[in-house]
Order: sequence, then C-alpha cells, then structure tokens
Amino acid sequence: MPRNKEDARRRLVTAALELFGASGFDQTTAAQIAARAGVTERTFFRHFPDKREVLFVGQSILGTALSQAIVEAPPECSPIAALRRAFVSVADMLEQNRQFSEPRRHIIAATPALQEREVAKHAALTQMVAETLQKRGVESRRAALAAQAGMAVLSYALNGWFADPSSGLVHHLDRAFEELQGLSSPPDHKWAPAFK
Amino acid sequence: MPRNKEDARRRLVTAALELFGASGFDQTTAAQIAARAGVTERTFFRHFPDKREVLFVGQSILGTALSQAIVEAPPECSPIAALRRAFVSVADMLEQNRQFSEPRRHIIAATPALQEREVAKHAALTQMVAETLQKRGVESRRAALAAQAGMAVLSYALNGWFADPSSGLVHHLDRAFEELQGLSSPPDHKWAPAFK
Repeated sequence: MPRNKEDARRRLVTAALELFGASGFDQTTAAQIAARAGVTERTFFRHFPDKREVLFVGQSILGTALSQAIVEAPPECSPIAALRRAFVSVADMLEQNRQFSEPRRHIIAATPALQEREVAKHAALTQMVAETLQKRGVESRRAALAAQAGMAVLSYALNGWFADPSSGLVHHLDRAFEELQGLSSPPDHKWAPAFK
Repeated sequence: MPRNKEDARRRLVTAALELFGASGFDQTTAAQIAARAGVTERTFFRHFPDKREVLFVGQSILGTALSQAIVEAPPECSPIAALRRAFVSVADMLEQNRQFSEPRRHIIAATPALQEREVAKHAALTQMVAETLQKRGVESRRAALAAQAGMAVLSYALNGWFADPSSGLVHHLDRAFEELQGLSSPPDHKWAPAFK
C-alpha cells in the first residue's frame, strides 16, 4: 500500500504510463491502473477525474511554477527576459521529470484524442503565462505575443533536449532563444524593401 | 433561391452569423440557418458537416492562401520574411472579409465550445504553416518555432486591426513584426548574466 497521497499519485502515474505504453491508451482502464498501482479504483478517482488527466497533472504543476517565477522576475526584465528566467527556474524540475515526460510524449503521439487535449492544455498554459505577464504591467496584446513566442521557444528547447539530453535543458533553452532572435532578423539580405 | 454554390455558401454564412449573434450559437439550428438563407436543410449539409463548421470555413481558405504564398516567396527569404510576405499577401482578403470575421469573433468569444474548436483549428493552421516552411528547406524544429512565432504575430496584428481598422492591416502587421523583435532584444539592461 502507498504510504501517503503523494506516493499514491506517483504510483498511479507510473502504472498508467506503463499500461498506456504496453497496451495503448484506449485499451487501458482506470481499474487496471489502480490495480497495478496497488490502490483501489476509488483512490484513483480521488486523484484524477479520468484516465486522461493522469497525463496532464505535470502541466498544472509546471504552470504554477512558471507563474511564480514570472511574477518574481526583477521589474526591469523585459517580457522575454522574465520568461527566460522562468524557464530556467523550472529546468531542474523538468529534467528530473524526464522518466515520466518521455514515455508520455510517445503515448500522446500515438493517440489522436490526447493530441487534441494536449493542444487545449498548451493553449491554456500559454494564456496563463500571458495573464501573469500582464500582472508585471505588460500590455495585454504584447503579453499574449510574448507568451506565445516564449512558449514556442520552450517547445523548441524541449524537443531539442528530448532528442539530445547530453547537453542539459538550460543549454537547449539558450539555443532556442538565440534561434528566436535569428528568425526575426535575417542577416544576409535586405528583405524589408521587398514587401509591397 | 441562390444562383450557384458559392452564392449559397455565402448566404448560409451570413444567415448563420446573424442568427448566432441574435439568438446565441447553442440556440440556433441548421434548419433555421437554411431557412433564413432560402435553401433547404439538405443544401446546408451539402456545404457544412454541422453548424459549427460554418464559422471555420474561412480558416481553410486562409490556410491554402498562406501555404501558396510561403512556397512562392523567393528562396533567399528567411522563415520570418517568408511569413511576412505571406501575411501581407492575404491582407486584402482578410480586410474584405471583416464583415464576417468581426461578428464571428464575438460569437466565438461568447461560446466556450467554439473557443476550444478555434484553438484546435489554430493549432492545425500553425502546423500547416510549419510544414510549408519545411518544403522551403527549413529544418523541422526551426520551422515549428517560426510558424508559432509568426502566427502569434498575425494574431497580434489582427487584434490591433480589429480594435483600430483606421490604419490598414499591413500597417498592423508591420508593427507586430517590430514588436516581436522588440520582445527578444530588450535594449535597456544587461540581462543575460543574471541567469543562474
């Protein structure tokens, strides 16, 4: 039997990822997850409204951590600088979570219904980041632009880090922010006058 | 009776926007939309799988136009320069479409189920833009970053233009691309060394 709530939750997530990976998301039931985790089905539903949410609990923790870091960034930080600090501040957490997030990615990639959910959750997280930037005094449209560009940078960094974990996530974040700057200022040719 | 397919579709969209605006999306049926447009319910379903899709037909046209423009941008264009050209190339179309897109925004803002759909469609459009950039030889992660940042710029410009149509959409696009550059290069203080 798990010793406490946090332990039960972790066992449920581990069991769910194993079963989803082995049998597929659609073929796995909450009862099977509970049995594998050594808890009752009722305990499962005390932790999660359905089996899908097992895969998204991390995003809510991430959102809370990012919000706090964005709010706490020094007032003189630009929106992107505040986001960069926030992403760097959660890098350790994300690295320690890789044993969950890596199988999770494969399960989501294999399950269209989960991809839709992932898109919706990502949009909600981006919205939350934008609202937190507004609390720093960033105008609302600018906050939305910064949040969307920033979350695109985070995705870029995470994808790079999943492909190559040998350099840490902070290194991939540095590269991703450079890449964003490179995109908006092509150095090789005069492009502005070409627009009609 | 509408004279042809294109005319029927336009009448259906107009009728749907009027009814959604007056009675709410949930309270309006496909039969009511068809009746107001002067066509049969069967004709409605020849054009749209359900009443929700009436609101998203424009996005599919936009996607096709953007794709074509991205592919046709000169090979020396950076990803962002190619996107800028593509957005400018659809500005006329978007401006002419304002009589539909403006009420559409209000209806979506008032209907949570439609917001979810909007998020999913926006993600699909962003994905399509990324894939089109890849056809130009842009590496896949870089293409995704450019597409996400670019679509954020387009949203910023559109929001500005909806709030202030007196300056055209191209002006708002110019401002939005400047804003993106401003976000990633805060000029006033040294921020890089502050990261741990």
